[in-house]
Amino acid sequence: MTYPNWLSQRSYLSGDRMALSFQEQQWSFSEINDLALAYAGKLTALGIKAESRVAILSKSNPQFVFVMYGCLHLGCEMVMLNERLATGELAYQIDDAQVDSILVDDVLKEKIVSSKVILFSKLDDTMPVRCEPEKQWQKDQTLSIMYTSGTTGHPKGVRQTAENHFSSAISSALNIGIAPEDIWLCSVPLFHISGFSILMRSLIYGMGVRLYEKFDAKSSAEEIHNGTVTHMSLVGVMLERVLSEMEKASVQASPRFKAVLAGGGPVPVAYMERAAACGIPVLQTYGMTETSSQTTTLQSADATRKIGSAGKPLFLYQVIIDKAENPGDKGEILIQGPQVTPGYIGKFAERNVQKDGWLHTGDIGYLDGEGFLFVVDRRSDLIVSGGENIYPAEIEKVLMTHPAVREVGVCGAASEEWGEVPVAFVVLSKETTVAELLVYCCEQLAAYKVPKRLSVVEALPRNASNKLLRRELRAWL
Amino acid sequence: MTYPNWLSQRSYLSGDRMALSFQEQQWSFSEINDLALAYAGKLTALGIKAESRVAILSKSNPQFVFVMYGCLHLGCEMVMLNERLATGELAYQIDDAQVDSILVDDVLKEKIVSSKVILFSKLDDTMPVRCEPEKQWQKDQTLSIMYTSGTTGHPKGVRQTAENHFSSAISSALNIGIAPEDIWLCSVPLFHISGFSILMRSLIYGMGVRLYEKFDAKSSAEEIHNGTVTHMSLVGVMLERVLSEMEKASVQASPRFKAVLAGGGPVPVAYMERAAACGIPVLQTYGMTETSSQTTTLQSADATRKIGSAGKPLFLYQVIIDKAENPGDKGEILIQGPQVTPGYIGKFAERNVQKDGWLHTGDIGYLDGEGFLFVVDRRSDLIVSGGENIYPAEIEKVLMTHPAVREVGVCGAASEEWGEVPVAFVVLSKETTVAELLVYCCEQLAAYKVPKRLSVVEALPRNASNKLLRRELRAWL
Repeated sequence: MTYPNWLSQRSYLSGDRMALSFQEQQWSFSEINDLALAYAGKLTALGIKAESRVAILSKSNPQFVFVMYGCLHLGCEMVMLNERLATGELAYQIDDAQVDSILVDDVLKEKIVSSKVILFSKLDDTMPVRCEPEKQWQKDQTLSIMYTSGTTGHPKGVRQTAENHFSSAISSALNIGIAPEDIWLCSVPLFHISGFSILMRSLIYGMGVRLYEKFDAKSSAEEIHNGTVTHMSLVGVMLERVLSEMEKASVQASPRFKAVLAGGGPVPVAYMERAAACGIPVLQTYGMTETSSQTTTLQSADATRKIGSAGKPLFLYQVIIDKAENPGDKGEILIQGPQVTPGYIGKFAERNVQKDGWLHTGDIGYLDGEGFLFVVDRRSDLIVSGGENIYPAEIEKVLMTHPAVREVGVCGAASEEWGEVPVAFVVLSKETTVAELLVYCCEQLAAYKVPKRLSVVEALPRNASNKLLRRELRAWL
Repeated sequence: MTYPNWLSQRSYLSGDRMALSFQEQQWSFSEINDLALAYAGKLTALGIKAESRVAILSKSNPQFVFVMYGCLHLGCEMVMLNERLATGELAYQIDDAQVDSILVDDVLKEKIVSSKVILFSKLDDTMPVRCEPEKQWQKDQTLSIMYTSGTTGHPKGVRQTAENHFSSAISSALNIGIAPEDIWLCSVPLFHISGFSILMRSLIYGMGVRLYEKFDAKSSAEEIHNGTVTHMSLVGVMLERVLSEMEKASVQASPRFKAVLAGGGPVPVAYMERAAACGIPVLQTYGMTETSSQTTTLQSADATRKIGSAGKPLFLYQVIIDKAENPGDKGEILIQGPQVTPGYIGKFAERNVQKDGWLHTGDIGYLDGEGFLFVVDRRSDLIVSGGENIYPAEIEKVLMTHPAVREVGVCGAASEEWGEVPVAFVVLSKETTVAELLVYCCEQLAAYKVPKRLSVVEALPRNASNKLLRRELRAWL
């Protein structure tokens, strides 16, 4: 029930192949392995060992990759912190995860105040000591932990095991194919499953990663056109910007370019048509942190025939609709497969993530007669904004703590730029200003979660049992 | 610890894709699934169920594939019989495996006399009854059982589980890549792991198989040239014949053709050079029935730099040399990975196939400084003849039962046509003729195992403890 250490094995089997490139620099698999071993030695010198749980907060740069790979060599669990979160949000996760150390990219050091912080610059200055990388990885060993919110608004730390990541990489390969010369453009955050899964695929496939610290539409368009990359992960709004650049320059994708993987909800048909005109096959995916990325994928060829569908499961996975008897019956989407997390850590550690072997996603959907999945309602009225998941409950919880707020309801509003953005409706108990409330949010929430519009209303739409009707809220927009 | 039923899943996910072609006919994945379900219904009508163990004896034709897939739907264990074996050899395996039924291609019905025989024609005439295919396959479920001989000369039935086959397919994909449009030319026997593993890859990858009942050098050369296939499995002698055809016709491999996988020992350098001239990348593999096909592979690019090497392990596998301390130290080759059989059936059921988690292959080899494996001595002086494994002990055991034979020693002799062929040296206890001894062998051994030369000698070379020195025998040739 083990894998050979992916870093060592990849360096042994294809050490000369390009593993990572960033701006003008690049590293082979044996070079990144050597760097990872050096970081493992530095981390060991600082007291980090196999049993440690380590949080990491960094921009998506090569050093982040090497530090993570050092942690993988040691076999410690990595809590991936989202650099866009507010200080209080980060503090919650660090506390919940009970981490031993926090490795922090120097440019982000203002974000966390803790005696457990070890800055990247400190790592650079540390002399590595001798350490033995783990030869074998247990399949059920937790490699990464990512926080995701939900109905309660309390983020939950999701365990992602070696087997979760391996299954995910393999299942994707069985769907879209792999070739030794593939290079994946990564400009989605490495602390998200969307970016982290690209690194896992890199190690498992022996595939090169072209890393960007931030999404850059113009450079992405150029790389796709030049064929210097073969794949790219993005969300709908990013796709639109890449397409605009390509249209402006009147260029097509290189024949070497194979596919875009698009997450975060259905891609508008208009984008799909423009992508086809640019020669870019777009695969729409449905997945979540609890399934280490994609679980179903809609092929480019089916996109116009099955508008709005999330496609079919990958080979190792099964998707059913709870209590559905016939095609088209709506119900909760249930997922089974080796990509499903074994569970949470921290205060949700006791919560069963699976019932009867199925992950209950909380999302509502149906399967059509051919077995294509359609997601009708995302769990907890999830708002997907520029690829980030936002749970209304998180924002509501913050606003409810303001002394002037009696009731609050949050929902998503359509946005040209971000797909969706959060908007809030509040009922006041005493006088205050909208500006005051927004500043209050800014202090406690990541910028992307701060409502883009906040309206004061007399009452919120509720049903007989007093449950907030978010669908009604959306009708107010 | 399950997989979704590969046949149902593949039919669901890519039902329209070509699964199998044979002569002028072809079938999609949904068509082969329907046929497999029909056979499952027929087999059910004849009393075969999930717990059954079923032997199959057939030529490598489409019906064989559909019957096997019917068995897979039911979840029964398949004992794959080698059609080239003699009646007595087949009887041994059938008895050892304690099979419930024996499914026999009509053209081979003379080979087996048993009340358990169900001819394919009988299957055709049987009305299917309703049956539920297994929705999930346990990872440790035995799909196939293949007999292999060894030092004792008593063939052992090797279990091959769903996980063994899955790991093998995946590991190969991580090595050479996969693409949805791949088509594998299969003209190696389906009852061998070399052929059967192509079917497993077909289901797992969603890949087409171009099936031939027999190897046909001219047609193979044409398909490689036309690009109607992308991969082919073969042994050195077959490669030579394909190359001769291509050279005769002055043609090159299509750019769509990706690779030949060559098993059964190192490919001579001269063949490698001719293959390169024809544009055919050749991957040399090392594997065995106990590892469900390839465990290590030598890349084309390394072939001239590492002549005689079996390459490096696939991604999920580990290979070490027992007791070796330095590169170059020779010893028994040990293998670890999810492709290693859990064990044998029948009279060898109690024998541990692994010690301390490692398969002890009995083969002697070494790893060089870069980690390339070199096989120095195949286990039990194995003779590989046209892709078939022959164990000297099997032939010796038969000859020893002849009343005129006192001692016998068998070894392999080089052959232009087959790579190696078996030759025998006998010491007589009373007078007989070589012809008489060869006829005796023909009655009890598959034709390919009958010695191609048999010499009567005064004494055999033995060491102090009276052990036969097969290396000395080879020196006599």
